[in-house]
Amino acid sequence: MKLQPPKGTRDFYPDQMARRRYLHDAWRRVSVRHGFDEVDGPIFESLDLYKVKSGDGIVSELFHFQDRGDRGLAIRPEFTPTLARMVAAKANALPKPVKWFCTPNLCRAEKPQRGRLREFDQWNIDMLGEAGPIADAEVIAVACDLLRELGVGPGLVQVKLSHREVVRQVLTSLGVPDDKINDAFTLLDGKAKTPPEVFAEKAKALGLGDEQVKRFDAMCSQAYAVGEIDKLCQAAGIDDKLEDLRAIDKALSDFGLSDWCVYDLGIVRGLAYYTGTVFELHVTTGKERALGGGGRYDKLIELFGGPAMPAVGFGMGDVVLTNLLEDEGLLPEHIGPRPDAYVISVTDTGDAQLPGVVSTLRFAGLHARMSYKQTRKVGKLLKDAEACRARYAVILDDQAASGAASVKDLASGRQESVALDKLADRLRG
Amino acid sequence: MKLQPPKGTRDFYPDQMARRRYLHDAWRRVSVRHGFDEVDGPIFESLDLYKVKSGDGIVSELFHFQDRGDRGLAIRPEFTPTLARMVAAKANALPKPVKWFCTPNLCRAEKPQRGRLREFDQWNIDMLGEAGPIADAEVIAVACDLLRELGVGPGLVQVKLSHREVVRQVLTSLGVPDDKINDAFTLLDGKAKTPPEVFAEKAKALGLGDEQVKRFDAMCSQAYAVGEIDKLCQAAGIDDKLEDLRAIDKALSDFGLSDWCVYDLGIVRGLAYYTGTVFELHVTTGKERALGGGGRYDKLIELFGGPAMPAVGFGMGDVVLTNLLEDEGLLPEHIGPRPDAYVISVTDTGDAQLPGVVSTLRFAGLHARMSYKQTRKVGKLLKDAEACRARYAVILDDQAASGAASVKDLASGRQESVALDKLADRLRG
Repeated sequence: MKLQPPKGTRDFYPDQMARRRYLHDAWRRVSVRHGFDEVDGPIFESLDLYKVKSGDGIVSELFHFQDRGDRGLAIRPEFTPTLARMVAAKANALPKPVKWFCTPNLCRAEKPQRGRLREFDQWNIDMLGEAGPIADAEVIAVACDLLRELGVGPGLVQVKLSHREVVRQVLTSLGVPDDKINDAFTLLDGKAKTPPEVFAEKAKALGLGDEQVKRFDAMCSQAYAVGEIDKLCQAAGIDDKLEDLRAIDKALSDFGLSDWCVYDLGIVRGLAYYTGTVFELHVTTGKERALGGGGRYDKLIELFGGPAMPAVGFGMGDVVLTNLLEDEGLLPEHIGPRPDAYVISVTDTGDAQLPGVVSTLRFAGLHARMSYKQTRKVGKLLKDAEACRARYAVILDDQAASGAASVKDLASGRQESVALDKLADRLRG
Repeated sequence: MKLQPPKGTRDFYPDQMARRRYLHDAWRRVSVRHGFDEVDGPIFESLDLYKVKSGDGIVSELFHFQDRGDRGLAIRPEFTPTLARMVAAKANALPKPVKWFCTPNLCRAEKPQRGRLREFDQWNIDMLGEAGPIADAEVIAVACDLLRELGVGPGLVQVKLSHREVVRQVLTSLGVPDDKINDAFTLLDGKAKTPPEVFAEKAKALGLGDEQVKRFDAMCSQAYAVGEIDKLCQAAGIDDKLEDLRAIDKALSDFGLSDWCVYDLGIVRGLAYYTGTVFELHVTTGKERALGGGGRYDKLIELFGGPAMPAVGFGMGDVVLTNLLEDEGLLPEHIGPRPDAYVISVTDTGDAQLPGVVSTLRFAGLHARMSYKQTRKVGKLLKDAEACRARYAVILDDQAASGAASVKDLASGRQESVALDKLADRLRG
């Protein structure tokens, strides 16, 4: 009998689940206050749906299977194709802008390693139907506010931004022909994982000689703050068609995100469907994988059979984020719900009343736990009450026969007698 | 391009997702206050894990696939095998009793129909390590409290209870040999869906003649209330080994569940692994499928390689429950989060301030939405604010230039001027 979960997946015992819930609650709370509505879709989709966006190459990265009608299906490796399908299906009926979030579990058939599992959760934020820079800024703002909510400041994590059009212009100015631009994006995206000599060779094939690669490297090794667009352009040797980037720069500043964001032309994102801004969230020490990333994808809804619709969004997984919070000591020591009452009995009459008292409290909406131990040692039972962080201990003692109990405030240590029929009101008050 | 979700699965647009969230929140809230800890496991498990509990026959009901190492995997059709695996793996280290809940999505390769989908959510409640009737009663109590929480009373839904040992004694007394008892349970479980003549024939093969079937039918068509154990036993013609049922009867009464529960020997549950109480939640009109069901399964943890450990639990799906709430008009008209503020601008200065004002409110923890419309018609914009049920409208008007805004309480209609740097405090207060 195998008692382990499948390779690359996780069992969530109560302690681990409490942490996961803590993260999901934060994702949800922050999404809602930024005006995003929650959505979700099926755990599996038609295999074709994933091929539309990512080509046939995606199949080997998926857990796929046939249903009884021999239809090809796959467990979702990302939410974006589902989102694009859902938006395309009701594009005209949906109020604009569409602002959606979700927190799906996703599966990828990859080799498990630090920061990467076969099943993980991913927070998705998407805003569609708004072409202006306000959408880029709102989407980035919700990511930053989530980090802040979890105790992560801009000193620890930065949003590194680039813009497809700017990089395209730079590559063109360096001599990459138009039909090689997408290949160049892919090469750049894998730069960190490619040995320099292999990179140089591949770059040459795209029209980038040693000198050009050096110039591009120099550009990418320099970060520019919000408000430094002119310096960035000067360094990049470009000067036209930057209204979009300039407008985004202003929106980031208007939304109060200057501390969180830097421009970094080295951020490419391999996915060819991005059309404008692209960004990733990186720990400033640079040790971990990106916490998340996204960008503008103005052509995707059309690709899925919908109307032309501008869109921008991002995804943030739970694995790298949880590693970061653990390493930085940012998870609260005690996570999880606190009982209102821990009910114990130290008399025969109390034993008989225990189930009824506990059940009445629960049906009155109070979180009540009880001792299942066969002991009358009140000190020991009170320790159990404290261990589960209950606010009050309810002690069914000698007063039980006269319809009352001792209620002990476990923070102050104060103890009082309360009639059983007033217990719920007293504990709520 | 297929714009529909796969057969038997659902897209959750914001309205549908808000209902789903409403249900999940209730499941979680009630579970927690009854002292259950949340857990979860992988979306897929080894195919063998499901065969252990249900035999090879289960395979055709699963969505199964191979990973790259040719390991057989299946999307979870139920949570119990995962739970049994998790408990067995850490049986000695877990504090007793183990009280767990979870709300997983599950998949079954069956024909979609009313009340039955290929993907659905299921609330699971399990209590392990406690052999006494208090566990049966606690588990049933949490189911009843959930219904109550959603506005469903014991007049609309009843917990129909039976006990494997009682039914076994009845079958034995009617002449079913020991080695046919499990077959008889399976036959009884399918009685409602079996034509009477087919049922009679199959019953005969198990040693039940027409007269015996009639007697059994008579027994099953009679429900007995909590406290009527003696009448039940008399009717069933049994009189020994009923301490367990008698203790459960008392516990149900102690927990205040007498109104919710009736004994009904017709409740069998096909799953052979139940060992004691079995129960199902049925709408009293009898029109719908069961809302959920469960029972005691004292041998299962051993079957999964763990120590002997008593256990009782149940599952409740979202599909039948949602149908019931809809049919009974029990879903609140407005579900979903209410914005604290809806921010609109009717001046040029206001337009420039809008992003900063909204972003500041959100980073201060307030749920703020804004208008994206290019209009200055305040009446129209206030309608939008009301439509999304915002508590306040914040109007960036002529005062914007002097660092203030009009704040309108949308319930009372009262309007006042508030300095922008005091806005978050004012809206929170």
